Amino acid sequence: MLNFEFKNPVKIIFGKGQIVKISQEIPENAKILLLYGGGSIKSNGIYDQVMSALKGFDVTEFGGIPANPEYEVLIQALKVIKDKQITYLLAVGGGSVIDGTKFLSAAALYQGEEPWDILKNKIRTDKGMPFGTVLTLPATGSEMNSGAVITRADTQEKFGMGGPGLFPEFSILDPLVVKSVPQRQLANGITDAFTHVLEQYMTYPAQAFLQDRFAEGIMQTLIEIAPRIQQDPSDYEVAANFMWCCTMALNGLIQKGVPTDWSVHAIGHELTALFGIDHARTLAIIVPRHYRYNFEQKKEKLAQYAERIWGIQEGTVDEKAGLAITRTESFFHSLGIDTMLSQYTDDYEGTAEKIEERFTERGWLGLGEHKSIKPGDVRQIVALSY
Amino acid sequence: MLNFEFKNPVKIIFGKGQIVKISQEIPENAKILLLYGGGSIKSNGIYDQVMSALKGFDVTEFGGIPANPEYEVLIQALKVIKDKQITYLLAVGGGSVIDGTKFLSAAALYQGEEPWDILKNKIRTDKGMPFGTVLTLPATGSEMNSGAVITRADTQEKFGMGGPGLFPEFSILDPLVVKSVPQRQLANGITDAFTHVLEQYMTYPAQAFLQDRFAEGIMQTLIEIAPRIQQDPSDYEVAANFMWCCTMALNGLIQKGVPTDWSVHAIGHELTALFGIDHARTLAIIVPRHYRYNFEQKKEKLAQYAERIWGIQEGTVDEKAGLAITRTESFFHSLGIDTMLSQYTDDYEGTAEKIEERFTERGWLGLGEHKSIKPGDVRQIVALSY
Repeated sequence: MLNFEFKNPVKIIFGKGQIVKISQEIPENAKILLLYGGGSIKSNGIYDQVMSALKGFDVTEFGGIPANPEYEVLIQALKVIKDKQITYLLAVGGGSVIDGTKFLSAAALYQGEEPWDILKNKIRTDKGMPFGTVLTLPATGSEMNSGAVITRADTQEKFGMGGPGLFPEFSILDPLVVKSVPQRQLANGITDAFTHVLEQYMTYPAQAFLQDRFAEGIMQTLIEIAPRIQQDPSDYEVAANFMWCCTMALNGLIQKGVPTDWSVHAIGHELTALFGIDHARTLAIIVPRHYRYNFEQKKEKLAQYAERIWGIQEGTVDEKAGLAITRTESFFHSLGIDTMLSQYTDDYEGTAEKIEERFTERGWLGLGEHKSIKPGDVRQIVALSY
Repeated sequence: MLNFEFKNPVKIIFGKGQIVKISQEIPENAKILLLYGGGSIKSNGIYDQVMSALKGFDVTEFGGIPANPEYEVLIQALKVIKDKQITYLLAVGGGSVIDGTKFLSAAALYQGEEPWDILKNKIRTDKGMPFGTVLTLPATGSEMNSGAVITRADTQEKFGMGGPGLFPEFSILDPLVVKSVPQRQLANGITDAFTHVLEQYMTYPAQAFLQDRFAEGIMQTLIEIAPRIQQDPSDYEVAANFMWCCTMALNGLIQKGVPTDWSVHAIGHELTALFGIDHARTLAIIVPRHYRYNFEQKKEKLAQYAERIWGIQEGTVDEKAGLAITRTESFFHSLGIDTMLSQYTDDYEGTAEKIEERFTERGWLGLGEHKSIKPGDVRQIVALSY
């Protein structure tokens, strides 16, 4: 097991009818900026619940934060924060709204001239403007971690950011919201959470027995609930497990003491930036290619995963590992998720070379748990997905 | 799944050679009271590591906190805190030292006249004197939770206490300490952590699939490492998993959203108070009796546990459940732990009645996940252990 530090101070308020508790968590005299996305919270009743809970507070609204939160939009919100002397941010939405809010939390207190530097220069945020979240779309885990991914439309780039100052003060997780999530987003959420676990698990054996068990527990639960949630998202018990799995998949716990990969995300982000493919679907495209390409490095953990998750007890390590990749791809298919780039765009020729070039330009010269995946390897992984 | 709130702000610093980091976590101008137990930290080198890390700090020492931390001793430490105007507490030890430190953290800022009231009247501590811990004995999980159990020798009583103000600010978990832990304490630690999980798991099915998986993951890991750690406590990887299991077993995570029992602890505490039996061993005495006595209430989860933990796939629910109890008792035996009260004392006659009376006097009229276990049931459970 590797040495680690772990601290996650987010207060989780989980369960039916918990949105009303917002008012207990935000200081009375706060000047709140309420941030949300495309407006679905107005049709599904969540907006009304939030506004009702915020009665008596000083609230300004900023809607329209897009999926893959765009820097250009966020800069407009930042202007509102300054103009209105906002003191508290409240994100009501999924990972995009929460990630956008984290950028704003950092940018609101940033002393430099150009907020883009926070992303470009990977500036760690030790103190941000306080914020809370009301999660409406389980998937990214952003509600219980301190990281965010921001997109810049004009340069087709996605960059990560974060720091200990960017944990939400509280996050309200009411599984009742799941019933109004479209099927496409449910499939994305399951795929996103599942891949988050894989990125922190599918490396090499690190003798972290407990972390492996926890990671496996999340994957087992996601596999168990996947067909049920697609069939009936209004099943509260299933929705609750789905929601808690997504949070636990990326709140830092299962990555402590183990090597992590994250190549799938790094490569997948490019496919979103270039083609606008849903984040989760880019992960489903890359996972099988990446694991086949780096088979030798990962086959021991792939075989453990084959045994414990997919019940594959027969065969050699190589056979089990190979079958595990096939089963993973089939799982994505069972969610209605296509796993070849060519199923998303006819314009895929040259993508592998383009991504290789971008990684080279950025100096991303070694990805993965061994830092051994070079831009040329990325090209070959992407080419396998045509 | 039940509604829940979860917040655990403890900073865990885990791994080889991490004790040196104490100095980064305590304010420079702190007046520190260093608390420890019987002095084993002086023979195993941990005291020297701690004092070396604290060079330049203002440190007062208070040693001699006994197993099952006694109120009478702690009151002496409280006097030192007042006399020396201590501002920061540092517990170096196992659960007893850490629990004692939590009491002192609460008592140091308590406004009432009589610190005993914190225990007697179950006063919740919202703000305590800040403290950190260096864990030397994995078992209780006290290093990452906000609860404590304190003993009063003159009345032979053990009482729980806690509150959100009693989380350690940081806890240093260096698995290298495990190699100097006596075999008896290793067996106790495994038993204690295993029973902590059982108390939060062995109730009735609550559709908390993920929490079940996490609980099972801790138990599977403890079973896997138990023989290895007894054979070679200097095996770092095994020690690290043991240590992390003990912490995760009682840091609040696996109890969120599920019913919990805790009858085993309530009854076990009496056996420690009456006979001085090690805490963990009292749990091993009560677990099998409690589960047999309340078989109907628990058999569904017992059967799930039989399947997933002990690999028992054949038979009816009743058969699997019954076998699971036997296997659990055998597991305790494999650790060298006796599971009958009569193996610890010849003076057991009348114990069941005495404990029934004490529970009745205290008004503990309904224990367990259904609050259905009455003092008369407790009498029968204890009598089964003779």
